[in-house]
Amino acid sequence: MQRKTLAFGVCLLALSFAATSQQPATDGPRYENGNDLVLPADYRSWPFLGAGLGMTYDGERGTPPGAEPRFTHTFVNPSAYRHFMSTGTWPDGSVFILEFRASVSEGSINRSGRFATNLVLLEAEVKDSRFADGWAFYSFGPGNNLARAAEPLAAAAVAPCVECHSEHAAVERTFVQFYPTLLDVAREKGTLKSGF
Amino acid sequence: MQRKTLAFGVCLLALSFAATSQQPATDGPRYENGNDLVLPADYRSWPFLGAGLGMTYDGERGTPPGAEPRFTHTFVNPSAYRHFMSTGTWPDGSVFILEFRASVSEGSINRSGRFATNLVLLEAEVKDSRFADGWAFYSFGPGNNLARAAEPLAAAAVAPCVECHSEHAAVERTFVQFYPTLLDVAREKGTLKSGF
Repeated sequence: MQRKTLAFGVCLLALSFAATSQQPATDGPRYENGNDLVLPADYRSWPFLGAGLGMTYDGERGTPPGAEPRFTHTFVNPSAYRHFMSTGTWPDGSVFILEFRASVSEGSINRSGRFATNLVLLEAEVKDSRFADGWAFYSFGPGNNLARAAEPLAAAAVAPCVECHSEHAAVERTFVQFYPTLLDVAREKGTLKSGF
Repeated sequence: MQRKTLAFGVCLLALSFAATSQQPATDGPRYENGNDLVLPADYRSWPFLGAGLGMTYDGERGTPPGAEPRFTHTFVNPSAYRHFMSTGTWPDGSVFILEFRASVSEGSINRSGRFATNLVLLEAEVKDSRFADGWAFYSFGPGNNLARAAEPLAAAAVAPCVECHSEHAAVERTFVQFYPTLLDVAREKGTLKSGF
């Protein structure tokens, strides 16, 4: 009887541990052929960080006249999100997905303003100590023909990304200044770069 | 020894079941005082359905001249999202959160286009058979003073919501026509209303 009780106790303990313990980060970057990032199949259910419409940056031209502006949506893997919400920093294995979507107006009952439609382009940024620089950038190509996996952008192609993310991002290499709920957390945790 | 082995087996089985079984929907609507909906504390990590900027609808005026257009972001509880992705329909206990956020341009390194900033208003829609109509609408008030819980909007106030959602929503009472990834699923599952 004692044995049974003990076994039952251990079982309950194990169940309770399984239910409440911090899950290992199984949602981190998955690579093949070395550093090629496999597109996370479920990124669309990951925490959403922020949206923009038609955003352009220093040195870029705006949306050309007559062209439809694009929505940008940023997502991050759940374990990295939880880590950021409690620390204001990104853990190793953070994966950011950036969607570019077409926009339309006057669709259905909509009369003004714009809403997002089909996927135009998909990009990713990964924080991982396996990279010399600690970060890597990926492009999965056009929305109607996404790559299943992508190799890291080559040094020459990625140089402007690295420069801009290093100089102008509010937290580490990420544009937390455009993610309102994260901005509050970074402010509270004191992890914003000076100037923000 | 046999007892131990059996207990260990049961324990493994229980652990395995806990890890792999369909979790009960613990993310559904939580009520107090009858039908008052408690604001889900973690809705910002729920699946994001779609974004709009400055959207207005039949019979409404557009963003007034000089006023900043608002971003709208829609989120749904994870269990309802999973159900929709496999069936194209919403289960009882679906909770939709609609954020209205202010927008700015020319902030940080941004030069044109707009990005979302502070929360202006928060609303919710719930599918639940406890309501005579099957659905209820809620407003949690202004973003700088959100209610912890909200009562269902009264019949007179909610009539235009019900009419518009019933007549113009692509799936049940939800504007899936504005949520591009859901629209594809509803089309595939054949759950779009006729006309879409």
